[in-house]
Amino acid sequence: MENIYEELGRWISILYRQFQIYINNELKDLDIKSGEYIYLIKLYEDQELTQEDLAKIYYIDKAAITRSIKGLEDKGYIKRTRNERDKRSYSIKVTEKALRVKKRIYNALKDWDDLIASDVKDEDLKYMSNKLKEMSIKALSRDQ
Amino acid sequence: MENIYEELGRWISILYRQFQIYINNELKDLDIKSGEYIYLIKLYEDQELTQEDLAKIYYIDKAAITRSIKGLEDKGYIKRTRNERDKRSYSIKVTEKALRVKKRIYNALKDWDDLIASDVKDEDLKYMSNKLKEMSIKALSRDQ
Repeated sequence: MENIYEELGRWISILYRQFQIYINNELKDLDIKSGEYIYLIKLYEDQELTQEDLAKIYYIDKAAITRSIKGLEDKGYIKRTRNERDKRSYSIKVTEKALRVKKRIYNALKDWDDLIASDVKDEDLKYMSNKLKEMSIKALSRDQ
Repeated sequence: MENIYEELGRWISILYRQFQIYINNELKDLDIKSGEYIYLIKLYEDQELTQEDLAKIYYIDKAAITRSIKGLEDKGYIKRTRNERDKRSYSIKVTEKALRVKKRIYNALKDWDDLIASDVKDEDLKYMSNKLKEMSIKALSRDQ
């Protein structure tokens, strides 16, 4: 009963897990985990975001995101300040310490991309990304 | 610095995590977890495999696979017997209990496939599966 969906799911899982192993190992000495670096790269790009913004970008549940943000704050990579527009919410920014490791993180990501996708055409990556996005949106549309 | 690799990685992660949530929830009353059902579906297909066979299929490290196999055994879904050809190794088979839930597991997987991929052409799924396989093999080729 091996089928095409199972195959696709298997490779998605393998690629996901291998990347987790890779990035955890690459960033180990910085004490940054696979579940944490994703927020840093968004904060580097957008400078200031709320926890709710980050939850929307990654579709990660509130408990998990709170844990990761707390971890990054405890380690001095981000700081949270009360959002001026909405007092119940926090604005999150990267710290000087996080800016010092920005290049390390981007380099680790680039090395990974080079390793797995250097000979895959941009249009093929784009095509896959769009298809997986469509599938993800359907996955997210279900009642949870 | 949003880029095409990051986008692809983001959707792979979201799809992976959503599926984990889905399948854990679907199989909760059977006490079967996302890290466990994958072995059952291989054992249903191939009847008898060793732990080493399963590790090769999923590229999962020895500690994790041992934990999952132990979990399935404790719950009565599989049984292990000394491999006749290699005494250091165990043959793993599904039990009657596992056969009784086979249809439930396949139905849960089918419902997921229908949800996320009902309007994706088989050839597109095949194409993505092959590309992600190539990328996975490169990921696995690195020194770990």
